[in-house]
Amino acid sequence: MANSKFEYVRLFEQHDHLLQNTWIVVRIDGRGFTKLCHKYGFKKPNDKRALDLMNVAARAVVTELPDITIAYGQSDEYSFVFHKNTTLFERRSSKLVTTVVATFTANYIFHWSTFFPDIPLTAPLPGFDGRAVCYPALSNLRDYLAWRQADCHINNLYNTCFWTLVQQGGMEPKEAEKTLAGTLAADKNEILFSRFKINYNNEPEMFKKGSVVFRDYELVEPGSHNVAAEVEKLAEPVTQSKTQAEKEKKKRAKARIVVEHLDIIKDDFWDRRPWLLSNKPGKTPKEI
Amino acid sequence: MANSKFEYVRLFEQHDHLLQNTWIVVRIDGRGFTKLCHKYGFKKPNDKRALDLMNVAARAVVTELPDITIAYGQSDEYSFVFHKNTTLFERRSSKLVTTVVATFTANYIFHWSTFFPDIPLTAPLPGFDGRAVCYPALSNLRDYLAWRQADCHINNLYNTCFWTLVQQGGMEPKEAEKTLAGTLAADKNEILFSRFKINYNNEPEMFKKGSVVFRDYELVEPGSHNVAAEVEKLAEPVTQSKTQAEKEKKKRAKARIVVEHLDIIKDDFWDRRPWLLSNKPGKTPKEI
Amino acid sequence: MANSKFEYVRLFEQHDHLLQNTWIVVRIDGRGFTKLCHKYGFKKPNDKRALDLMNVAARAVVTELPDITIAYGQSDEYSFVFHKNTTLFERRSSKLVTTVVATFTANYIFHWSTFFPDIPLTAPLPGFDGRAVCYPALSNLRDYLAWRQADCHINNLYNTCFWTLVQQGGMEPKEAEKTLAGTLAADKNEILFSRFKINYNNEPEMFKKGSVVFRDYELVEPGSHNVAAEVEKLAEPVTQSKTQAEKEKKKRAKARIVVEHLDIIKDDFWDRRPWLLSNKPGKTPKEI
Amino acid sequence: MANSKFEYVRLFEQHDHLLQNTWIVVRIDGRGFTKLCHKYGFKKPNDKRALDLMNVAARAVVTELPDITIAYGQSDEYSFVFHKNTTLFERRSSKLVTTVVATFTANYIFHWSTFFPDIPLTAPLPGFDGRAVCYPALSNLRDYLAWRQADCHINNLYNTCFWTLVQQGGMEPKEAEKTLAGTLAADKNEILFSRFKINYNNEPEMFKKGSVVFRDYELVEPGSHNVAAEVEKLAEPVTQSKTQAEKEKKKRAKARIVVEHLDIIKDDFWDRRPWLLSNKPGKTPKEI
Repeated sequence: MANSKFEYVRLFEQHDHLLQNTWIVVRIDGRGFTKLCHKYGFKKPNDKRALDLMNVAARAVVTELPDITIAYGQSDEYSFVFHKNTTLFERRSSKLVTTVVATFTANYIFHWSTFFPDIPLTAPLPGFDGRAVCYPALSNLRDYLAWRQADCHINNLYNTCFWTLVQQGGMEPKEAEKTLAGTLAADKNEILFSRFKINYNNEPEMFKKGSVVFRDYELVEPGSHNVAAEVEKLAEPVTQSKTQAEKEKKKRAKARIVVEHLDIIKDDFWDRRPWLLSNKPGKTPKEI
Repeated sequence: MANSKFEYVRLFEQHDHLLQNTWIVVRIDGRGFTKLCHKYGFKKPNDKRALDLMNVAARAVVTELPDITIAYGQSDEYSFVFHKNTTLFERRSSKLVTTVVATFTANYIFHWSTFFPDIPLTAPLPGFDGRAVCYPALSNLRDYLAWRQADCHINNLYNTCFWTLVQQGGMEPKEAEKTLAGTLAADKNEILFSRFKINYNNEPEMFKKGSVVFRDYELVEPGSHNVAAEVEKLAEPVTQSKTQAEKEKKKRAKARIVVEHLDIIKDDFWDRRPWLLSNKPGKTPKEI
Repeated sequence: MANSKFEYVRLFEQHDHLLQNTWIVVRIDGRGFTKLCHKYGFKKPNDKRALDLMNVAARAVVTELPDITIAYGQSDEYSFVFHKNTTLFERRSSKLVTTVVATFTANYIFHWSTFFPDIPLTAPLPGFDGRAVCYPALSNLRDYLAWRQADCHINNLYNTCFWTLVQQGGMEPKEAEKTLAGTLAADKNEILFSRFKINYNNEPEMFKKGSVVFRDYELVEPGSHNVAAEVEKLAEPVTQSKTQAEKEKKKRAKARIVVEHLDIIKDDFWDRRPWLLSNKPGKTPKEI
Repeated sequence: MANSKFEYVRLFEQHDHLLQNTWIVVRIDGRGFTKLCHKYGFKKPNDKRALDLMNVAARAVVTELPDITIAYGQSDEYSFVFHKNTTLFERRSSKLVTTVVATFTANYIFHWSTFFPDIPLTAPLPGFDGRAVCYPALSNLRDYLAWRQADCHINNLYNTCFWTLVQQGGMEPKEAEKTLAGTLAADKNEILFSRFKINYNNEPEMFKKGSVVFRDYELVEPGSHNVAAEVEKLAEPVTQSKTQAEKEKKKRAKARIVVEHLDIIKDDFWDRRPWLLSNKPGKTPKEI
């Protein structure tokens, strides 16, 4: 048969299974978003519509891929964390990354008109690229997320100052840049407050902290779980009864997926939500 | 600065540069398309609207990424061939794959309503996964593409028979399956012709051969170029003058990108289009 | 210059840096040792000379590569554990593996005549192949070492029985095999004791437990260190003063490297030697 | 059974199969040979004994691994070329590299006393590290080998000049370095000839060209084989009858393995020895 003669080409595929027992972060970034912001007239320093659209797309990704335990986004980027025990797609890097990128992009395009009803998309369409990175220790994962949230804070404070100087202060961009060169966070807060009566603390949480997407269960008392110890126990493949697995799957499917703007650098966020790291669904909150 | 403390996490990223001087094939496949065909009522054995939509999306990918020399698609899959000399994204696998997947998916969603005006998309949205494979020799690449086109032919002949038996012959799927078990191509042609007066050769080319997307220039006389030799010469990084590179880029941008349904297994297709493998733009056809 | 024209071939080298913050195990195995045992008349089930030679070679490896925190060997295999914080050779897999293999092989050949003074080596010479595996969690590493030591125990009990049946019981190998088929550990102990008056517990520790190679410092009280917690803290690159690094290097260089035959499955071994995992040299024992 | 509980750790091994249909070059380099040259008093600029020892070790590697088609060495490095069709060790990188390194090192240590009868080895023993690189096209492979041979020529001309200036010209190293700074090949030849009556062309071929190790058959007429075309045909896995494979294996085993000092940059060497690239054993020369 003609087909078999060519089929040897399958041998050229190379394995890309990610190391077991590591947290897999799939990070996506907008392709050419500087240009795109300009093309569609995104507001500076933050366009709420654009961020809401990012969040809707991220929520769809988390909904469709229950192995994602948490996602964090800011600006034109989003990071999706697969639990270190995941066996989805046999942990093949390209499958994981492209599935996230495709689902995110599809939803971004699909929901565009909801957030930008008067601004039709034209070619070339928005898109995202992505890559997977493995983090062996819980502390590495926490530091990765802290890195992104710290980055959000730093950029947002700078951008808020910069655009206030330009938009309200009437400065040329170059001039605003010079004004901010070498300033510390305190200086920037001071500029905003003394010149423009803006208290940075009152800026929207979404702008200052970015967005966190996760399944929501009842919060627990901090200190009631030793999450780090629970996570360490998950170092070997879990053998779960099918009934148990089914039960957890159902609980996860029922869980509400929320988008919030919280501090994920400090421990409190994690202490009160042990399910994020233990991968065991929490208690579903009673409906009121 | 808080940021730098966490920044060490960047060290965990791993290189995924694909081997130099190899043809890079990025293949994408529809995610869960069996279910999706059913959900949106795709026609069997082929839904022209769905294939046209695939082709529009593929054309957009080839347009946006001039390093792609040819693309071939059938059913819910498409293969994009980056020329072996490409340095796009430093040949990083995840960048190449996700860019193709995102661009394809974005266009698929965006153009859906053109081809299915009465069938609105609902969650979960269509998506594609992808992976990159390297082929060192031209013959490996040609065999890869031949493999996909042979696969198209085999499946389409089978599916055409199967669905004709069901739709026109009134058979139950199981019965049709049994009827076709063990039959050769000649037998299937005979079934179609003797029972249903269908000459398989007259079926649409797009169904029988799949779709080929490429930049179109003036055809050359077969035998006038020694393509294999030209390709072999491209084994080392090409050092081109900037003027020359600019000129080729312009020519490429001006070229019409076509979607055709041709035999790409035989040599003729390639002999008449030396630019596909040499990566040197051909002669732009005169407009009439 | 002629050279530069060819130098582009360096671009074909691919990165093979191992993931940060993971324990790197380089495992080497004898090449064709079944044949080799026969060729040089190694004693069955264990040849003390051959094992002592393995241990001398392993000791040389640990001496030359201070980033190795512990090594474990049995039969014709040895596993070398690089601390998860190592930056040796930028963690390049091929450099790490080949350096271990070369050092081990060189010493095996060099010291052969000490252990086999009457048996000259002839071509093909003994050799070892190797590979590197990363373990993210301390528990994974401990389980890896436990796996090898359990394997040693299982094989040695079986082999001791088998060869006793053959050598002392006068059985044909096939017959001995049949006798042991399906037996449990208790059955094998019973066979040895009831038929041959051999108490397996009295067999040499090196045969039963394999060999552990490590730097020796003063033992600590179990429970006085929380090793797991100390190890977890090493999840980010350590920034050490040069003086401190120099000091530790000297202490490590002075430490005695020992070859012992201890249980490394249970916690006790590790609790009393916190330096193995913390990578901080212990207290040098006072010389008497 | 205790063993199975730990066995999950095998899942952490990662695949390292090298891309099909590419030439695999395993290059080994002496570890710390600058120091070692000094320790054992190697002669400058070339120590014939040391090079002969390298060649003996390389010959042993080629003898034991018939999938190696050619090897090239100079100074303290050696490159071993596995034919692009090899399936040895399923093309696993670490197996291939460590087997070469171990075999080379073992022979280097074993034969040391033959070449340095009065200079005993002491710890730390000589060793080699290695890595594998894939070359997709024959021209890439040829360029790789040309790169190494050009490097040999360049270094040897420089070193010959340098050490002649020091040893015969009585210069301090720094002075000799300065004298040679910025000189071209012609200048160096001139220095050797005019100041020291040394005609560089008369230097030993081994020093000027390095060493080539390969299986020797009857030379063919240049032009009688189209090697490039034959090689291109080997792009897919070869299906050979077992009898044919056995026959070739025997022929290969019988072939004499030679160490020569020839130009491998020009075509002539390859044209006359088509078996090096075609991987089909040539005609065994008649014994006289």
